[in-house]
Amino acid sequence: MTEQLRPDGSLRHLLTLETLSRAQLERLLDRAQTFVRPLGERPPRTQALAGLTVANLFTEPSTRTRVSFELAAKRLGAEVVNLEVQLSSRVKGESMLDTVYTLQSLHVDALVIRDAEAGVPGLVAGHVAPHVSVLSAGEAHVSHPTQGLLDTLTIYQRKQRFAGLAVAIVGDVRHSRVARSAWHALRALGVADVRLVGPAALMPAANEFEGCARFRSIGRGLEGVDVIMMLRIQKERFGDADVPDGEKYFAAWGLTPERLALARPDAIVMHPQPMNRGIEIASEVADGAQSVIRDQVRNGVAVRMAVLAEVLGARRA
Amino acid sequence: MTEQLRPDGSLRHLLTLETLSRAQLERLLDRAQTFVRPLGERPPRTQALAGLTVANLFTEPSTRTRVSFELAAKRLGAEVVNLEVQLSSRVKGESMLDTVYTLQSLHVDALVIRDAEAGVPGLVAGHVAPHVSVLSAGEAHVSHPTQGLLDTLTIYQRKQRFAGLAVAIVGDVRHSRVARSAWHALRALGVADVRLVGPAALMPAANEFEGCARFRSIGRGLEGVDVIMMLRIQKERFGDADVPDGEKYFAAWGLTPERLALARPDAIVMHPQPMNRGIEIASEVADGAQSVIRDQVRNGVAVRMAVLAEVLGARRA
Amino acid sequence: MTEQLRPDGSLRHLLTLETLSRAQLERLLDRAQTFVRPLGERPPRTQALAGLTVANLFTEPSTRTRVSFELAAKRLGAEVVNLEVQLSSRVKGESMLDTVYTLQSLHVDALVIRDAEAGVPGLVAGHVAPHVSVLSAGEAHVSHPTQGLLDTLTIYQRKQRFAGLAVAIVGDVRHSRVARSAWHALRALGVADVRLVGPAALMPAANEFEGCARFRSIGRGLEGVDVIMMLRIQKERFGDADVPDGEKYFAAWGLTPERLALARPDAIVMHPQPMNRGIEIASEVADGAQSVIRDQVRNGVAVRMAVLAEVLGARRA
Repeated sequence: MTEQLRPDGSLRHLLTLETLSRAQLERLLDRAQTFVRPLGERPPRTQALAGLTVANLFTEPSTRTRVSFELAAKRLGAEVVNLEVQLSSRVKGESMLDTVYTLQSLHVDALVIRDAEAGVPGLVAGHVAPHVSVLSAGEAHVSHPTQGLLDTLTIYQRKQRFAGLAVAIVGDVRHSRVARSAWHALRALGVADVRLVGPAALMPAANEFEGCARFRSIGRGLEGVDVIMMLRIQKERFGDADVPDGEKYFAAWGLTPERLALARPDAIVMHPQPMNRGIEIASEVADGAQSVIRDQVRNGVAVRMAVLAEVLGARRA
Repeated sequence: MTEQLRPDGSLRHLLTLETLSRAQLERLLDRAQTFVRPLGERPPRTQALAGLTVANLFTEPSTRTRVSFELAAKRLGAEVVNLEVQLSSRVKGESMLDTVYTLQSLHVDALVIRDAEAGVPGLVAGHVAPHVSVLSAGEAHVSHPTQGLLDTLTIYQRKQRFAGLAVAIVGDVRHSRVARSAWHALRALGVADVRLVGPAALMPAANEFEGCARFRSIGRGLEGVDVIMMLRIQKERFGDADVPDGEKYFAAWGLTPERLALARPDAIVMHPQPMNRGIEIASEVADGAQSVIRDQVRNGVAVRMAVLAEVLGARRA
Repeated sequence: MTEQLRPDGSLRHLLTLETLSRAQLERLLDRAQTFVRPLGERPPRTQALAGLTVANLFTEPSTRTRVSFELAAKRLGAEVVNLEVQLSSRVKGESMLDTVYTLQSLHVDALVIRDAEAGVPGLVAGHVAPHVSVLSAGEAHVSHPTQGLLDTLTIYQRKQRFAGLAVAIVGDVRHSRVARSAWHALRALGVADVRLVGPAALMPAANEFEGCARFRSIGRGLEGVDVIMMLRIQKERFGDADVPDGEKYFAAWGLTPERLALARPDAIVMHPQPMNRGIEIASEVADGAQSVIRDQVRNGVAVRMAVLAEVLGARRA
């Protein structure tokens, strides 16, 4: 496990939220909040990272997350370069490291890495020069730390607390990096009641998500919760064991207005996007008054600005 | 039909030229002219849109138009992000809107959209927040408004008038957004003699291009015209009814020096590019003294600067 | 052959190193050295090219070289646009020129071109307007001038001289633009002992690399050399005449620690990347104390800054 912190305790890489303390998470969330502006107002723009270079190195397509990181870096004054690399799996680890050494030699200061294979961001972080930071933008099913931060920031904005909240995570928890990073953050921030809701085939292994109650009925799972985090269902899951397809999935697991009514009246609805409307979530709910899905996106760029400012701040000084 | 104008009459979106008045077109052309510089001189560069963000959202490849918009926005000081998205057609409308809501939540101020499906730019414009502008960069066969503006600007630079001009549009008018936008602008600007020239299978429906004479012989169509607008022929049209392929198309409809000689001696030759040299146009003509094809490109970035400045000017103030 | 120099002797295009004099090469290398910073220090950043536009026009994928040129241009203050174009071979020359004319009309000041076909950068340079510069970023097997410059800069940094050095170029010399550009520069800079080492099928034609000794045994080829330039072997060469595949290639031609020991004790090891570790080079050597491979990358961006500053300096003044 690559250490994320510098000897002085400051954040150097962001690979996972699993090992961050409550204080470290709160510090990042507080900093992110300073970059949030309402829709229609100008986003903040500084030259805090002028002269620094951020590379987005994506081996999986993800336009939305790439653009969010790109704008976060540019609004802090950094140069940004985008690379989409296809690496053959046989030589992937070493090719990835050679690409990373190349970027480092081009005076890149931070690498934003998305990869479908577990371990790649950590591998890279373990090999870069001491002044270079690595940020995960999504690692296999394992981790998506900036998503976990934007999710918890969104919850805090609406609830002004974490203690005492009940949060349901609904759908394909087993394969979800979003669920894992949310869970790491929620646990550290003191949310005791995190529920996993979905078909058995999509539940994580028994030794994961310790202390989370598991529900095989969406109705009971949503009862009285403050927060509903819907997950995207990949169509390739359909046909697995007890995962019905399309319409049947919606009938069994989709978030409808009726099911939403089982949660607290002020419950919020979240989704990491892209959404399968009519499959895991009804459009009335996605676009309804309780949806905070667009807040999540807005908070995403703020969180990424905070993380970049945090890890590169020392470089700048 | 989405309204393009704000209540105060200023331009908010640019989706079509069809509903713009002569005064509105002239205002845009005048503004564009201020951004024109001769080849070899520096283009103007301002910070008029500093702090604003423009997203190029293209679902069809178009390197040239994307780069033209990108440079227009950057030369006005805006941030630019490029997205190429492939959306499956079944969920296209809603996926497009979700992508647009995401960009809006990332504080994007203007969306430049190119799409092969009719109605998409209008759909998006009908759903964005009040401070966001939508610019069409080409919509199916329907509309390509910045192309129409650059075409009319190019004509005006050479002719210094619109009244009394004769303009021939030659080739696949039926499937051409370029022809439609040019026609909308030319009509509003007072060009009475617009001729459509091409094989019957490529002529638009009878209720379109009202008042334009139609010619099934290129010789008679070009007689005495001031302006020849050649259109690109898509190779997939060959074999349709009376559309001969390759060499035969050139023999029947290609613009040769001999045919050009039928127009007025000071006639100008235009093409929206990319050209099929030797199919719809002879290289001697494309590169000849009467060609203004490169002026069109130069005017394109000026027109896009004018449109961006116009729609985002209020945001800036 | 397109002339690279302006009438006043200054560099206008960079297509090949073959015709540059020792003084011209030294001037570029000296200028490049001023842009070199150690890993971990900030790269220099100026506004020397503010208001100018550089287009990267790549018809072959090359993330590393594209990013290197992109950062070089941005760190000099220029705008950069990236285009990846696929041109069908039948109409390639003219389509390329039309694309280039378009970029020129968009007020692009320098075109960085990579192409798999011989002659394309020269063709373009022969057609652009007088104020536009063309830089080759790799032309078929013919030329890769910025690579030749970064290679010689790397050698000079370590050896502080060219006279009296022995340089071995090892592997697929026949198909290598890297080898050709290095050879052109080394010859002009006074390196008399340049050796070509590799299987007969990968040796260049007899009339090329005049005066270079050729070795069909890597052991004898490396004896006493100061510099080893390894080349990438393309997997499609395997199976040709005497080119064994994978492991056998490594056994016959791979640079191992044992073979490296045949060179001078202070010999340096170079590779243009991407590397096939375990095929043309052992990982211990690639990452070992004598490897200067990462210096090559760092020098690459410095060389590209020098070349851009050189060809566009006159534009700026």
